[in-house]
Amino acid sequence: MALWGGRFSQETDQLMARFSSSIDVDQKLWQADIRGSSAHVRMLVSQKILTAADGDKILAGLNEIAEEIRSGAWTFNPAAEDVHGEIERRLFEKIGEPAKRMHMARSRNDQVSTATRIYLNEKLNGLMTDIRELQKTLVALAEVHTHSLLPGMTHLQHAQPVSLAHHLLAYFWMLQRDYDRLADSRPRIMTLPLGSAALAGTGFPIDRQKVAAELGFENVAANSLDAVSDRDFVVEFLANGSLIAMHLSRFCEELILWSTPEFGFVELSDAVTTGSSIMPQKKNPDGAELIRGRTGRVYGALIGALTMMKGLPLSYNRDMQEDKIHLFAALETLEPSLKLMNLMLQSAEWKTERMAAAVSGDFSNATDLADDLAAKGMSFRQAHEVVGELVKFCLKQNLKLEDLTVAQLKKHNSLFDQVSQQKLAHTQVLKARKSEGGTAPDAVLVQIARAKAVIG
Amino acid sequence: MALWGGRFSQETDQLMARFSSSIDVDQKLWQADIRGSSAHVRMLVSQKILTAADGDKILAGLNEIAEEIRSGAWTFNPAAEDVHGEIERRLFEKIGEPAKRMHMARSRNDQVSTATRIYLNEKLNGLMTDIRELQKTLVALAEVHTHSLLPGMTHLQHAQPVSLAHHLLAYFWMLQRDYDRLADSRPRIMTLPLGSAALAGTGFPIDRQKVAAELGFENVAANSLDAVSDRDFVVEFLANGSLIAMHLSRFCEELILWSTPEFGFVELSDAVTTGSSIMPQKKNPDGAELIRGRTGRVYGALIGALTMMKGLPLSYNRDMQEDKIHLFAALETLEPSLKLMNLMLQSAEWKTERMAAAVSGDFSNATDLADDLAAKGMSFRQAHEVVGELVKFCLKQNLKLEDLTVAQLKKHNSLFDQVSQQKLAHTQVLKARKSEGGTAPDAVLVQIARAKAVIG
Amino acid sequence: MALWGGRFSQETDQLMARFSSSIDVDQKLWQADIRGSSAHVRMLVSQKILTAADGDKILAGLNEIAEEIRSGAWTFNPAAEDVHGEIERRLFEKIGEPAKRMHMARSRNDQVSTATRIYLNEKLNGLMTDIRELQKTLVALAEVHTHSLLPGMTHLQHAQPVSLAHHLLAYFWMLQRDYDRLADSRPRIMTLPLGSAALAGTGFPIDRQKVAAELGFENVAANSLDAVSDRDFVVEFLANGSLIAMHLSRFCEELILWSTPEFGFVELSDAVTTGSSIMPQKKNPDGAELIRGRTGRVYGALIGALTMMKGLPLSYNRDMQEDKIHLFAALETLEPSLKLMNLMLQSAEWKTERMAAAVSGDFSNATDLADDLAAKGMSFRQAHEVVGELVKFCLKQNLKLEDLTVAQLKKHNSLFDQVSQQKLAHTQVLKARKSEGGTAPDAVLVQIARAKAVIG
Amino acid sequence: MALWGGRFSQETDQLMARFSSSIDVDQKLWQADIRGSSAHVRMLVSQKILTAADGDKILAGLNEIAEEIRSGAWTFNPAAEDVHGEIERRLFEKIGEPAKRMHMARSRNDQVSTATRIYLNEKLNGLMTDIRELQKTLVALAEVHTHSLLPGMTHLQHAQPVSLAHHLLAYFWMLQRDYDRLADSRPRIMTLPLGSAALAGTGFPIDRQKVAAELGFENVAANSLDAVSDRDFVVEFLANGSLIAMHLSRFCEELILWSTPEFGFVELSDAVTTGSSIMPQKKNPDGAELIRGRTGRVYGALIGALTMMKGLPLSYNRDMQEDKIHLFAALETLEPSLKLMNLMLQSAEWKTERMAAAVSGDFSNATDLADDLAAKGMSFRQAHEVVGELVKFCLKQNLKLEDLTVAQLKKHNSLFDQVSQQKLAHTQVLKARKSEGGTAPDAVLVQIARAKAVIG
Repeated sequence: MALWGGRFSQETDQLMARFSSSIDVDQKLWQADIRGSSAHVRMLVSQKILTAADGDKILAGLNEIAEEIRSGAWTFNPAAEDVHGEIERRLFEKIGEPAKRMHMARSRNDQVSTATRIYLNEKLNGLMTDIRELQKTLVALAEVHTHSLLPGMTHLQHAQPVSLAHHLLAYFWMLQRDYDRLADSRPRIMTLPLGSAALAGTGFPIDRQKVAAELGFENVAANSLDAVSDRDFVVEFLANGSLIAMHLSRFCEELILWSTPEFGFVELSDAVTTGSSIMPQKKNPDGAELIRGRTGRVYGALIGALTMMKGLPLSYNRDMQEDKIHLFAALETLEPSLKLMNLMLQSAEWKTERMAAAVSGDFSNATDLADDLAAKGMSFRQAHEVVGELVKFCLKQNLKLEDLTVAQLKKHNSLFDQVSQQKLAHTQVLKARKSEGGTAPDAVLVQIARAKAVIG
Repeated sequence: MALWGGRFSQETDQLMARFSSSIDVDQKLWQADIRGSSAHVRMLVSQKILTAADGDKILAGLNEIAEEIRSGAWTFNPAAEDVHGEIERRLFEKIGEPAKRMHMARSRNDQVSTATRIYLNEKLNGLMTDIRELQKTLVALAEVHTHSLLPGMTHLQHAQPVSLAHHLLAYFWMLQRDYDRLADSRPRIMTLPLGSAALAGTGFPIDRQKVAAELGFENVAANSLDAVSDRDFVVEFLANGSLIAMHLSRFCEELILWSTPEFGFVELSDAVTTGSSIMPQKKNPDGAELIRGRTGRVYGALIGALTMMKGLPLSYNRDMQEDKIHLFAALETLEPSLKLMNLMLQSAEWKTERMAAAVSGDFSNATDLADDLAAKGMSFRQAHEVVGELVKFCLKQNLKLEDLTVAQLKKHNSLFDQVSQQKLAHTQVLKARKSEGGTAPDAVLVQIARAKAVIG
Repeated sequence: MALWGGRFSQETDQLMARFSSSIDVDQKLWQADIRGSSAHVRMLVSQKILTAADGDKILAGLNEIAEEIRSGAWTFNPAAEDVHGEIERRLFEKIGEPAKRMHMARSRNDQVSTATRIYLNEKLNGLMTDIRELQKTLVALAEVHTHSLLPGMTHLQHAQPVSLAHHLLAYFWMLQRDYDRLADSRPRIMTLPLGSAALAGTGFPIDRQKVAAELGFENVAANSLDAVSDRDFVVEFLANGSLIAMHLSRFCEELILWSTPEFGFVELSDAVTTGSSIMPQKKNPDGAELIRGRTGRVYGALIGALTMMKGLPLSYNRDMQEDKIHLFAALETLEPSLKLMNLMLQSAEWKTERMAAAVSGDFSNATDLADDLAAKGMSFRQAHEVVGELVKFCLKQNLKLEDLTVAQLKKHNSLFDQVSQQKLAHTQVLKARKSEGGTAPDAVLVQIARAKAVIG
Repeated sequence: MALWGGRFSQETDQLMARFSSSIDVDQKLWQADIRGSSAHVRMLVSQKILTAADGDKILAGLNEIAEEIRSGAWTFNPAAEDVHGEIERRLFEKIGEPAKRMHMARSRNDQVSTATRIYLNEKLNGLMTDIRELQKTLVALAEVHTHSLLPGMTHLQHAQPVSLAHHLLAYFWMLQRDYDRLADSRPRIMTLPLGSAALAGTGFPIDRQKVAAELGFENVAANSLDAVSDRDFVVEFLANGSLIAMHLSRFCEELILWSTPEFGFVELSDAVTTGSSIMPQKKNPDGAELIRGRTGRVYGALIGALTMMKGLPLSYNRDMQEDKIHLFAALETLEPSLKLMNLMLQSAEWKTERMAAAVSGDFSNATDLADDLAAKGMSFRQAHEVVGELVKFCLKQNLKLEDLTVAQLKKHNSLFDQVSQQKLAHTQVLKARKSEGGTAPDAVLVQIARAKAVIG
């Protein structure tokens, strides 16, 4: 039975009951709900709003319920309205009348938002740990591969050689921004709505700071109307999650490309790939494809939550119940995605010879030849022209740039000399880019140190 | 055990297995899968690709499995990869070797797409029926309310009076476009991919036309690569569903507004509203709010599917497995939303006196006064100015436009006369708009006839 | 000066004026607006609502204005509210009083929607022509390449060989669905709102069928409230456009991949690629990247329009003015994208030797070996296992499957024979897939004939 | 002529040139580009990479160009590729050869990202100031209206009375979160990519810290590949902007509702409303509608940018050029929206009598009656039931709850007394909610002090 029957003369229609029930979704919140209720009850007792005797019964009852759920001794009625009402109903079964006093000085509106925030905060910790684990894997790989040549790409064309370490570390910094955004969002997540009651606050002499302190909230919501109608913390998380998903989609795209026989830069382990039901030779990078494809689920959750909130008047509207659908969809995608990404990287075989072979003769040393001319006083724009012509010549003659003799170089432009020729070795090209943040092994070692300092 | 182990030496990681399993989602497809497989097997037999004996065993086995699932005698292993593999595994348990021949001349790629299309096609029928039911309710209400005055709004400001019938019928036509779009999409949904095998077709002498005919497909996919990598039918449905959701969100917005004490144009039944756990007086239009809020789920599914498909090379990629998550999210939202909308309308109490009272003195007859001047030869722009000044005068004097005497009118402009005054009654204003598609009762009767003709 | 000053005592704020002005966007509608107004005026005259003399003056004036705009003799005031008001103002400058009568029996609400529909309908014709041109290019290329071997991919792994013709034709059918969706949408675009006036119809004895006939509309909107608040036609177009953009993004992804030195399957012409300001050797597939990247603009426009419409009460709300921003963003993206795609294909050099070389030794003939065993009575699942082991063996020994001798084959399984060995040639593999819609040259010829029949 | 012609033998196609040109969009960046180039050049000189003489010529030239653009003496060629190339071309016209040396040790990739960040950072300052201005208006209004009764709504139903001050302050805190999010994003925006060159860093002995310090960047990008392919700062801004737009859409929805004659809680000024071309009486809240409708533009930009980035391999791809389209669309929407919102609030007339009248008899005092019973020992759930019945009784008898006598109350439940009756006055109800963050005038005064402390 619903908790609000008084003025109603007609039963809720079954279709409506099913449509409005959220217990299949929000049952994940049971622990957070019990934690929130327990803190609320302790505060009610300490403020003498509730007797110690009632408080003790409620707290013991809630503890028992938690045990029952953990052990499976009691399960939720799938037809219940939501997890919060279901726990309250169970409490009444256990302790009778006092159960009804637990809801003093609060309402479902502030209760649900509080539980959701507690839940998300814990998930945030998990995600941040997953990010750190992934970053550690990247640093570990980078330490091994500071000299592993790889075609650095722009427009998916060979541009300049980079090291595999440098390439992998690019993802380190994307993940670091993700980490920082999650950290930045925490004070907004951990702002306590509880005590805002339905929308306007309460006349009971509650102590919200006490509840906040017990539950680890950083702030107390300053305005009760805002508190019960704020879902920014969900949207902000979904936006931050969309950026994580986007970064992973890029990384997966590369692993998929690199797994093709054409590239052959990596072989993913059997543990994260699958075969085909019809083609015996196939080894498919399904893990990477699934992570990439599930980007859509996170983007969709973001747009879903933004749509839900658009144009809603104050304060709470039932539309907002949908926040959890979107939040959980993103969490369920991001958590295993980060872990699987880590597993894919840890178990991958990096084909460094194939990478190095791909660099040979790819003209990605052309910039250095132009820089050489520029260093000798030619304007960079002119140098660019000269080397462009030289590349065209090599392409026609099927020559590698690095195989040209000094004489051949000089024929094209008299400024070329021995030094120019030496600059053409790809390992030299790599070493040359030693500016801060550059791909030269020396610069990458500095970068690795910086990365380690960041993750502590 | 997976169906493709041959070249693999290592087990799939558990995390990967869970991440890639879709059986919790795609088990909805079991009937469609069995229908598709059965048609495939019958064709294989008739083409002599499979012996009649094997065919009979497979068909009988599939029938038994269907019975088992319906009765609950057998349930899916929640750790299985997908519903298709799980049914095949069950078939092997039942009939042994011949089970393995069911998969000849097809692959998972064409099999899954076929099952999804069969499933969606049936859901389409259901949605189209739901739309028709809702349209019938609207027509029935319209027939009662051709003379019920209602403030017609633009910018949510009273503009001109309309009838409640006319207002409700506006949604009839939105739904009609929704219906037509679903109908238009059917040939694209019902294009058979089966027989495309993994991506390139097959060497077995299959007869795809026969399978298409048996399963009610309208076309056979012309290109096997396209067939296995096409998810247009999902995206198109999600776009059509987004328009349905958008229309319902508008209707619900109005029901919510009209349920406020300020408007008071409708009282929704207890069956589709809920109360508050803290405020005993509340009667909340939760049904309408939930439908409106779930618009986000459908929009989110659309953007999720579009994101998933963006930039994918041919042909099948594992990313596409996510199509069902998005498709089912929309279906689960739209089906009950349409039904609940119907229930809300059928059980609502329309407060026609409040609507009529709202029209009185609202200046929504001002256009007719301007038209009156225009009909007497004044340019419409001038007439608009004159009446604008008159409205300003009434607002200052707190007068209703329809209460002005002929003399008072004349004082403002000598072109006004008895006729002008008579045109100011709101019922007259309503009757006057008798152009095709207008709100005059006569025009609305024509519109109702047109609506009835459409729904047959 | 605005057209609605009467009851207002204060000027519009400059910020507000700029914020609400749409002339920088909607000036594209000038021709459509003049066409719509002219048809309206002719109808007003024929219905005797307007005198022939006034009608003639207005029509002549509108013609002159059209000439002035075309020639540049008169330009819009960039501070004007919108193109419709600006044209009316210009008409008044030219012909005085009668200009003010043009607006009889209509309002801005039905006028703007009518002009937008006229405009979109013309753009639709253009897009459909562009699609047809692109399809023709695909067919022409396909006719040349029915025997050009290409690795057919699933999961971006070599799966089975296909022909370049078959691969290109996959896009033909995607585009055909796009074409059909645009065609299906036309009756909904070409439903005439004009004559709905502000929201409720009009008392003037107008003839909407006459206007519809003159302007080429297929229907007359059945309900005036719906007519002025319907933007389905914009959303539907944006959804259809999103699918076009998605298809092009996939094609461009492939061209970009194929342009890498690793793949080397295509060389795009200088005309559609660009170089680097710093790397002289670069030849970047910018055209393909830009088309792919602009997918976001079309998706964004779709979600923008859906967001705009969510939860809006009837009838017209000013929010809807934004429809044109989104519509034009998509049109400006799609038109050149389709044309540029065509140009890229026409001017590309297809490196068929590289494609054929990529197929060699890629194990994409493995399925045929399994099929061979299956044809000899082994269950397909077992055959799959056997061939999977054989592939593993070849990978370890660095052998090509097609280079195995009959003896070597037999050593793995006694069912193998001479026939098995012959099936391993990739050209044989290609020829074998002759099922309807398959990649065998014979099947592709049938497909080409079907394609030609479709485009007429 | 493009800057990269060397290896190309064919001209860029005109269609391609138009499609890839971004100068119509990115010309907004001219100042940021010149600032970035100037800092780069000064660093090149101080690092002796460029001679002081060349440096001086370049800097003087850039200054002159800035003057020319400001004065209109020189305008961009609309057919140019982008603003960066166009400024370099102009510089060459002015100073010849040395112009070509400005581009040493950088590339277009790091140059453009740097300019975009400089530009966004300045826009951020503007938006943050606009937010502060709006917050000040809210605080000023709140100070006046701490006792102005307003129906507090949940589900758009009267729930409990609040003060207008409390309601307006809810938006203060939403805006505060927006402000904080923008502030949090700044270190990520102000991370300097310049010096990353094309993708891999440079061999020139540059000093990136020096450039960062001069331009006000807080960090130097740690990885050159990441630096040139990072568009997080754009997406993060669009997400933050989407939340701002969402908040404004909610506020506007309320202003639109409150402007209806049914609510009548506010009259927006003539300065921010418009009339109708056909209905002389109309006063439409167009400003609020446009802000609400343009939410779609910001959401669309967000999804556009996320789509653009999905699945892109490293490092720079031309797709990313589209970042500016999306960024500028959001900025152009948000800037005037915030300002117009402020103007609307400042110039609005708040109809406090209508608000107070709406509260009377609305049963929003029912919770307090239930709280009264609960305070007397009844469980809250039971109290809720009792009061629910009482409300039902009043609705049937058409009585206001606050008009019931003590005797009438007692007849329903013996726990009711004089105190119960006194609690029913809405002003008492308001005063009672004095918990932290509650709506009681005393609590709101504390809230106002907190708000003032926040904005400093």
